[in-house]
Amino acid sequence: MANEVKLHGVTGSPFVCRAVIALNLKEIKYEFVAEDLSNKSADLLKYNPVYKKVPVLVHNGNPISESLVIVEYIDEVWKGVPILPQDAYEKAQARFWAKVIDDKCLPAVFKAIASHGEEQAVAEAHEALQFLENELKVKGSKFFGGDNINLVDISATFLALWVGAAEEALGIEVLSKHKFPKLTEWSDNYVNCQAVKDSLPPKENLVAFFKKRFGKA
Amino acid sequence: MANEVKLHGVTGSPFVCRAVIALNLKEIKYEFVAEDLSNKSADLLKYNPVYKKVPVLVHNGNPISESLVIVEYIDEVWKGVPILPQDAYEKAQARFWAKVIDDKCLPAVFKAIASHGEEQAVAEAHEALQFLENELKVKGSKFFGGDNINLVDISATFLALWVGAAEEALGIEVLSKHKFPKLTEWSDNYVNCQAVKDSLPPKENLVAFFKKRFGKA
Repeated sequence: MANEVKLHGVTGSPFVCRAVIALNLKEIKYEFVAEDLSNKSADLLKYNPVYKKVPVLVHNGNPISESLVIVEYIDEVWKGVPILPQDAYEKAQARFWAKVIDDKCLPAVFKAIASHGEEQAVAEAHEALQFLENELKVKGSKFFGGDNINLVDISATFLALWVGAAEEALGIEVLSKHKFPKLTEWSDNYVNCQAVKDSLPPKENLVAFFKKRFGKA
Repeated sequence: MANEVKLHGVTGSPFVCRAVIALNLKEIKYEFVAEDLSNKSADLLKYNPVYKKVPVLVHNGNPISESLVIVEYIDEVWKGVPILPQDAYEKAQARFWAKVIDDKCLPAVFKAIASHGEEQAVAEAHEALQFLENELKVKGSKFFGGDNINLVDISATFLALWVGAAEEALGIEVLSKHKFPKLTEWSDNYVNCQAVKDSLPPKENLVAFFKKRFGKA
């Protein structure tokens, strides 16, 4: 069977980046189909009629939407570097923390950024991020996945590069080194993993994006 | 190894019910630890410090939180009736639809109920539910899982019993048979599955709950 892999995405999206990192980790050859979000392709609308969003992975004609669903699918279909733990309990814990990042941490951090670092919003982001800081402290490991990155690290991609870019663009501080020493150490280690490094957009592009999107006139 | 299974929960919660259905499907013996949400147990706060919510499954002392993470864990650890498809693509689709239910359908339906059936809120709920109606139509099967229930059916538990109870309590209509013939047929089939039937709270208790919580004085 032909193994045709396409990824519909936009550069600069942390959610698309999750899928790209998983593809790179597994050394999968794929075609990147660049979408214009102001004029979405007929394929994208057909593949993801519910959300009409990227990323969409299309494997031999079969579309899969939602970044974490895509990452789990990639891990299941392609052998090589594992992305989820093998042990059922550890796997459940990884899924739990990925969900915490999506449902609790990212919305709080987005809000802190969108508010230009308004005090209450930053306090709420800190409260959410403290759970991740504690988890890294308890694990005592380089990554959420231990010695190597896993689903949780990939879920937290936004925190590793995008937040720093937003801080630089807007002159705010959300993820301070002083308050979150483990998370900032994790962030440095994470962006320097080869598969991650190869997948990330240039930071200056993100800084420019945040200036345009959230910057004061 | 002892196989000690405890479920911290409250009766009447559709999220706890998801875990109960999975346990019953697999014929797992477990102890139900009833929580008082106005005075949460020290165990619950220790097991789920992030959300402090039920359900929490504790398997041989290891706690797992978040209902869909619990259901996937149960499916992975205990053999017997499968809850997720074996095929990787079908599994990804099941996870996608479970996510659509949690992120899109349930919030819209909650809002329609909390608003006492306000026109705009009901229209938004209908828009979200239409995706599920279409999916059942496309599948042409009794359940989202085909001939048997799977993760998606279990995710949609709230729609099968709770919505009807809310409609009865508040004299509103959200999930009309006329508009959603497939979903209402699914709903009837679902609540009559033995493992589901054995897991659901009595409908009159839910009607009473909705009257108290959302009813007009």
